[in-house]
Amino acid sequence: MINKLISKIQKTGAPIVVGLDPMMKFIPEHIQSKAFAELGETLEGAAEAIWQYNKEIVDNIYDIIPAVKPQIAMYEQFGIPGLMAFKKTVDYCKSKDLIVIGDIKRGDIGSTSEAYAVGHLGKVLVGSKAYYGFDEDFATVNPYLGSDGVKPFIKVCKEENKGLFILVKTSNPSSGEFQDRLIDGRPLYEIVGEQVARWGEEHMGDSYSYIGAVVGATYPEMGKVLRKVMPKSYILVPGYGAQGGKGADLVHFFNEDGLGAIVNSSRGIIAAYQQEKYAAFGAEHFGEASRAAVEDMREDIASALNNR
Amino acid sequence: MINKLISKIQKTGAPIVVGLDPMMKFIPEHIQSKAFAELGETLEGAAEAIWQYNKEIVDNIYDIIPAVKPQIAMYEQFGIPGLMAFKKTVDYCKSKDLIVIGDIKRGDIGSTSEAYAVGHLGKVLVGSKAYYGFDEDFATVNPYLGSDGVKPFIKVCKEENKGLFILVKTSNPSSGEFQDRLIDGRPLYEIVGEQVARWGEEHMGDSYSYIGAVVGATYPEMGKVLRKVMPKSYILVPGYGAQGGKGADLVHFFNEDGLGAIVNSSRGIIAAYQQEKYAAFGAEHFGEASRAAVEDMREDIASALNNR
Repeated sequence: MINKLISKIQKTGAPIVVGLDPMMKFIPEHIQSKAFAELGETLEGAAEAIWQYNKEIVDNIYDIIPAVKPQIAMYEQFGIPGLMAFKKTVDYCKSKDLIVIGDIKRGDIGSTSEAYAVGHLGKVLVGSKAYYGFDEDFATVNPYLGSDGVKPFIKVCKEENKGLFILVKTSNPSSGEFQDRLIDGRPLYEIVGEQVARWGEEHMGDSYSYIGAVVGATYPEMGKVLRKVMPKSYILVPGYGAQGGKGADLVHFFNEDGLGAIVNSSRGIIAAYQQEKYAAFGAEHFGEASRAAVEDMREDIASALNNR
Repeated sequence: MINKLISKIQKTGAPIVVGLDPMMKFIPEHIQSKAFAELGETLEGAAEAIWQYNKEIVDNIYDIIPAVKPQIAMYEQFGIPGLMAFKKTVDYCKSKDLIVIGDIKRGDIGSTSEAYAVGHLGKVLVGSKAYYGFDEDFATVNPYLGSDGVKPFIKVCKEENKGLFILVKTSNPSSGEFQDRLIDGRPLYEIVGEQVARWGEEHMGDSYSYIGAVVGATYPEMGKVLRKVMPKSYILVPGYGAQGGKGADLVHFFNEDGLGAIVNSSRGIIAAYQQEKYAAFGAEHFGEASRAAVEDMREDIASALNNR
């Protein structure tokens, strides 16, 4: 799957993943009204609005991006109907040949991590049968519990030819509270990064590992160090756009081969129509605004990489 | 809710939480066959088996324990039908006046943690209405992202009179890989514990905070230190029984007032009928075996506390 991700990045020229993190305030009025007219102001109505919103965005951009990253929390908050919209979104994106990174940030003790791995990346046994629960292609994983919380995910990834992105240095303002603390003179995130590199050796693709890392665009200098600590790990870079990261901040996350990083943007793409820059599209054409925003983001990254 | 938890612990004399972590191998044959006969060997069939299994256990023990802790991964692995069984279990336990600790170990950047908090502990807005997604009483939270990943949970807890247990030192063998690393001469788990104590000050009950911690029974010496670092935080102690923790290991997790800790047992209770000690009950009477196991665990803890 990492090989497929790289080949799709090369084909589209877009080391971009679009975060499908639908908040109600992003969803155009006309989509909400239609869903509520049909199903009421209910969890089911909200889930329908989310699904219609996602579908229109995906239909407008699937041919110019390699991957999407639905943030499961944005669905889980609407309970079971919300999670049904998550699953529908995952399935639809896969039917469009998009790679789906489930942003689930799970992680637990061994047997529990195994259950999460099976549910999101693998098949669960029911009597003599086996079923996929959610079936994403990649998942994000929290490393706080150490190797025996991560290895069950790697085991399932090997069986299913899937991959992980493990949290190393997150994009949020207080990520340094624990992640930056010095251990023998080096920050915790570097120690975690080294471990990600070791875990990655267990499941290599052609040129990169199936086991990648999450490092926030908001910390470019740390990205520079981590790029060297984990040379074979793909880095998923959140924090571009709305959280403050810019194209020029991103260059250090890439290797000399122009590969090694995939940059996430969520509201910057899916709610592009709400920005002044794309307001001319109007709420009715929000999908086209998203497409324009993807194209601009691709240019921003390409020009930053050309100028380094 | 922390006041209610303490009052129920005092009433039952059982500082015990039963982990409702149903694995298929724990579920008696007769329950599985009935569910599969009705719904086939499907995700729906598995979910029905889990629900019937949980219900019978709860019916047998609800009057002698204060709380249950369903591990969401064990449900999530069966996809949407599994999560419906999770919700049904949460709702049923609450109807029996049990306190429900959702073992979800979520944690993300601010706006995403807010969505998880809303989905599991609070109400989500849909137009002019508000709904509970899952509605547990407490949730477990992963601290790796720092304060701005935790505070949205605390905010919802304040609004809803609910609480958290934050991972400090987990019970698994490799938990030390990152958690034990020394920072200025002190392990990371202590630094996290201090932060939990500070977060706890923001949301105090009568004698303990609504913001507790998770510290594994498998690390009693560390529990001793952490008890002092977080005097007002309730400690949720997993790892008793199947993971190797014994009654005598637990005493240091309690304060002098006999309070301050609640000990989790999962398979030791819910699959008690599979142990030699309780085999005489037979698979047909697995619920009664669970009740006997709760009573034995209560005695084990009480005698350890009396002998300290």
